[in-house]
Amino acid sequence: MISRFSYGHVIETEAILQKPAAENGALPFLTVDEASLSLTYSMDDNDKVYGLGENVRGINKRGWIYQSKCSDEAQHLEDRRSLYGAHNFFVVSGKETFGIFVDYPGILTFDIGYTRYSELKITASDWNLDVYVITGSDVKDIIHQFRQLIGRSFVVPKWAFGYGQSRWSYMSEDEIREVVRKHRELQIPLDSVYLDIDYMDRYKDFTLNNETFPDFADFNQEMKEDHIHLVPIIDAGVKQEEGYPVYEEGLKKGYFCTKEDGSPFVAAVWPGKALFPDMLNKEARDWFGEQYKFLLDQGVEGFWNDMNEPAIFYTEDRLKEVLDKIDDYKDRNLDMNEFGEMTALVGSLSNNTKDYTRFYHNIQGEKVSHDRVHNLFGYNMTRAAGEAFERLEPDKRILMFSRSSYIGMHRYGGIWMGDNKSWWSHILLNLHMLPSLNMCGFLYTGADLGGFGADTTEDLMLRWLALGIFTPLMRNHSALGTRRQEAYQFENMDGFRHIIGLRYRLLPYLYSEYMKAVLNDEMMFRPLAFDYPDDRHAKAVEDQLLLGDGMMIAPVYEQNADGRYVYLPESMKQVRFSADGTVEETILPAGHHFVEIPLTDVVLFIRPNHLIPLSKGGQCVDEVDFEALTFLSYVTEGNEAVYTYYHDDGYEKDYENPAHLSEIRISSNGTVTK
Amino acid sequence: MISRFSYGHVIETEAILQKPAAENGALPFLTVDEASLSLTYSMDDNDKVYGLGENVRGINKRGWIYQSKCSDEAQHLEDRRSLYGAHNFFVVSGKETFGIFVDYPGILTFDIGYTRYSELKITASDWNLDVYVITGSDVKDIIHQFRQLIGRSFVVPKWAFGYGQSRWSYMSEDEIREVVRKHRELQIPLDSVYLDIDYMDRYKDFTLNNETFPDFADFNQEMKEDHIHLVPIIDAGVKQEEGYPVYEEGLKKGYFCTKEDGSPFVAAVWPGKALFPDMLNKEARDWFGEQYKFLLDQGVEGFWNDMNEPAIFYTEDRLKEVLDKIDDYKDRNLDMNEFGEMTALVGSLSNNTKDYTRFYHNIQGEKVSHDRVHNLFGYNMTRAAGEAFERLEPDKRILMFSRSSYIGMHRYGGIWMGDNKSWWSHILLNLHMLPSLNMCGFLYTGADLGGFGADTTEDLMLRWLALGIFTPLMRNHSALGTRRQEAYQFENMDGFRHIIGLRYRLLPYLYSEYMKAVLNDEMMFRPLAFDYPDDRHAKAVEDQLLLGDGMMIAPVYEQNADGRYVYLPESMKQVRFSADGTVEETILPAGHHFVEIPLTDVVLFIRPNHLIPLSKGGQCVDEVDFEALTFLSYVTEGNEAVYTYYHDDGYEKDYENPAHLSEIRISSNGTVTK
Repeated sequence: MISRFSYGHVIETEAILQKPAAENGALPFLTVDEASLSLTYSMDDNDKVYGLGENVRGINKRGWIYQSKCSDEAQHLEDRRSLYGAHNFFVVSGKETFGIFVDYPGILTFDIGYTRYSELKITASDWNLDVYVITGSDVKDIIHQFRQLIGRSFVVPKWAFGYGQSRWSYMSEDEIREVVRKHRELQIPLDSVYLDIDYMDRYKDFTLNNETFPDFADFNQEMKEDHIHLVPIIDAGVKQEEGYPVYEEGLKKGYFCTKEDGSPFVAAVWPGKALFPDMLNKEARDWFGEQYKFLLDQGVEGFWNDMNEPAIFYTEDRLKEVLDKIDDYKDRNLDMNEFGEMTALVGSLSNNTKDYTRFYHNIQGEKVSHDRVHNLFGYNMTRAAGEAFERLEPDKRILMFSRSSYIGMHRYGGIWMGDNKSWWSHILLNLHMLPSLNMCGFLYTGADLGGFGADTTEDLMLRWLALGIFTPLMRNHSALGTRRQEAYQFENMDGFRHIIGLRYRLLPYLYSEYMKAVLNDEMMFRPLAFDYPDDRHAKAVEDQLLLGDGMMIAPVYEQNADGRYVYLPESMKQVRFSADGTVEETILPAGHHFVEIPLTDVVLFIRPNHLIPLSKGGQCVDEVDFEALTFLSYVTEGNEAVYTYYHDDGYEKDYENPAHLSEIRISSNGTVTK
Repeated sequence: MISRFSYGHVIETEAILQKPAAENGALPFLTVDEASLSLTYSMDDNDKVYGLGENVRGINKRGWIYQSKCSDEAQHLEDRRSLYGAHNFFVVSGKETFGIFVDYPGILTFDIGYTRYSELKITASDWNLDVYVITGSDVKDIIHQFRQLIGRSFVVPKWAFGYGQSRWSYMSEDEIREVVRKHRELQIPLDSVYLDIDYMDRYKDFTLNNETFPDFADFNQEMKEDHIHLVPIIDAGVKQEEGYPVYEEGLKKGYFCTKEDGSPFVAAVWPGKALFPDMLNKEARDWFGEQYKFLLDQGVEGFWNDMNEPAIFYTEDRLKEVLDKIDDYKDRNLDMNEFGEMTALVGSLSNNTKDYTRFYHNIQGEKVSHDRVHNLFGYNMTRAAGEAFERLEPDKRILMFSRSSYIGMHRYGGIWMGDNKSWWSHILLNLHMLPSLNMCGFLYTGADLGGFGADTTEDLMLRWLALGIFTPLMRNHSALGTRRQEAYQFENMDGFRHIIGLRYRLLPYLYSEYMKAVLNDEMMFRPLAFDYPDDRHAKAVEDQLLLGDGMMIAPVYEQNADGRYVYLPESMKQVRFSADGTVEETILPAGHHFVEIPLTDVVLFIRPNHLIPLSKGGQCVDEVDFEALTFLSYVTEGNEAVYTYYHDDGYEKDYENPAHLSEIRISSNGTVTK
């Protein structure tokens, strides 16, 4: 059951398209204190808290203070409170079990046992918010209801389940040809190459560098013939440059965010001084969405939206202030306080919260300060694109994922998990975010495999890929200045070929589970706690996930480990894929196990009376035969495994066509019935 | 067997006091390439590499590139290459097993399977180095030989094994009285309170703030009567201030480091502009050591040396350069490259490697550029103190530990593990560094419990303390601006009292093992791999340690965990100490176990036929009766446990007096014989 409680004058987020009528009674579970702008819940020692989408720390969010404040936060350290998204949905599971969604576009704090171990406290920045309380038969039911409420998740084209190679940046057509050639030569499957900011003419959205990408439409076509999709990046800021049509048109029509006096708000991002399209103004959003046509017309079928928290390197006004102040420090004997102030001044230029109070949106004629709607910006940039794709390419699936997001955006695109690091700890963070994001409707997601910032190592790359083969978005991405990390940069080509190749063997299952999760408003990745609510230890497991109907995954995330511990809440079949091509199946009893997992092995688990369809693999998604299946299964005596297989052509949008669904049965003697 | 190979003109580090004669033959194991200033070893897939003292990552150092370059590095991120110390000793264990110590005071790089998984490569900055190759019967024997070579480790007074409370900073005598009062009232044991930089008069070494610490000698006496030792910090830089005697005398006598032209080198640190005493010049070192007398005379019996990498906030010359350059960025439309340059300029002011090339030491009359001997600075600052203590207080043990270090310094002081963070991952890093540091002679060590930077949580504090009770230095320390983290700031007083109290019960064992490790040149903390070399899985265990003769520890280092997995290479007795006072003993078979460990339980393991003496505890070390012992033991049928117990008064220096040693035996029927 879902109840909405409304406080103050709510700014519409459109996270929820059909709002239930607001209740008049008292808010259940939470204590409301308007004076402190807070909602409080008293937790038992055994209460666990799940959700908050993209954020730091564990699956169980207890023991930290989080903030919904979309942030360009490239470190993802344990002590950060925000990442790129704002996902205000969580479920408390324990003495009472209920879900809460705070629909609120401003900055919101969730103190989940940080200040006091037994207290959960939500604090808003003002008292204009909708609070949804969801109760149900169990955690999964609560989440299912919430997912129904927020609407169906975005669907990607099937090729977007292939392996993608990215780098900030591949600088030219020839460099990309070389990346593709090496993958093809080494028989490392590949479906996409990502274009980071340098494909543009001086970082101007919807332009091309004519020197390095002189024949983009032809090049795009050439790549497609090799089954490679090029996926360009689009940034939030539009360069301020005379003669640049996007800038000039936007300015003329008043589509950019303004300062209080109505003059354009100028912030520096990649292109230098730039203006932010007012994504919260419907007309401006439509206009911005229309710009993607420039690339669609050249054959592009996928995009990623970046810098849309929005990130700000500096604002014109603030830079002047800071440089003037620094003058005061010249020719003086600075004491350490003054020195600290001086360096802090420079450090405060980028992504300064104060800058978010200095510009305004035009929301249906009302001038609204950005900070009040901060968390809606990236969402509406991606919505601009998604709505435009519906108009421009109504019959085609266009890949789209974003860095910043708010619940509601899941209807228009996926997200990647932002600019992470080549740290072992970020494999586990990748795993932790999968179920939290699924709870909030984000199904197409994944992390920058191998790590974006910092230098990777061969073993980190292999271990991370062994998780990445299970995530819908499977992309190897890394930053300027870091060690190159395309598979072919390393030595163990058999290992890379094996692990990435296995992704393609798993595609029938992964794609089927993704589509069913979309169509049924379910989670693709779930903590063990959700499926085994009566298993006390399952609730503490933070490094294994259930994947779809019948699979459990348990990746290795520690350097130099020879394997890892795995907890089985019930007997499961362990399946080991080794680089020599062998597939070893072992039935393990319920309980704790140490499983040896050499660097190039991948191990997964099948739940009893379940099956997993496998393809023969391929060098790209187009090569994978989704009908010529083999099966892994674990069927106990006298039982059968029944699997609902979703299979479509991966390009059309008739998702609900019943012809896409079929049933596969395997009996305990191994007989397969389709 | 130890062989020394000498290349070029070696700068004397005095890491080793009695050097063996240099060999003439070829260097075994390693391939020498003088052209690339490197030494290379080809590793097998199963080779493991231990050592490098204080650094990031695991016990097995394979899979990363490390640098010996003492650095003020307060994040300890996975991708860093250096921390505060330079500890150039490691052991390769595998197809060939050998130890290498590169005695070299400049910057040295250890690429241990980073660039190529199979290659270990050491690269120096110039070709003047001593390489020691050590072979032996096994890893422990190699380390034992190395430890004999570098000389006996520093011994602390026994009170330094008590719990210490620190904060940057306790600002006054009254604030410290309050800290002590609360511990005493709540019956949380305490032996020391640390004075961070604010006790001084404007950060001038060997001064006191007369307003906040008006009667320091009396206050020190008052604290001692309550069994509290005050431990002040000493910084490396001496404030440049007319009328400040330390500055004036040092300047007059030429004891400070100079620029190339002989004028004093001025760097800004806490006191603002400051000069570095030339710790590598024997006369200057003697003089600096003598300064500690100011505090010794007021009853101080312990110190910590900080900022001695040396950390530099900025140098006068470079600050001027940077501020002048920033002028050029004013009133211009900065593109992102220029903006990046501008912020990088400011970011490069602190701890800039170039500054280390701009000042000089006077080493026996020779002018030596600091960068060539960089890693010896902190070592020699602590040596200055240690040598002075021998002169000034020959009969007394004075506590000393340092932030920066080099091998050799272990004879003069311990180290703390530097400015860590309130991150769960730093509990494990704390554990990883214990054996690596022990290998290099650093026995008195520990991390800032609860974390120095960032905000801690109650559960992090409790879990970290549950490791900290086993480390010789057990200190709760945190930074200015972070959440207060004295035990009494939290709610679960029973939990804190229990865990910290257990430290005092364990003291007879911990102190005895520490002293035996010192006297016998052994490790107090060892990886399982060292004691169970034939156990394949033991070599991969990175989160358990053997502690002394008969104990194994396995702390919880993950938030919200209900316990952890523990690997037993042989049957052991699990001992569980719960907050309600119960002690539960369970014999577990060899193999893998999941052990439930609630937040306030401490679990340890006893090896077969070993015993652990326990005291009754106390509120301070003085209160602990080291003779009224009870015993935990695990004795199998027909066997006995024999323990060599070291026990002295903890203050005198007659370490080798045979009266300190006694033997305790427990038979399988529980009979104790002393």
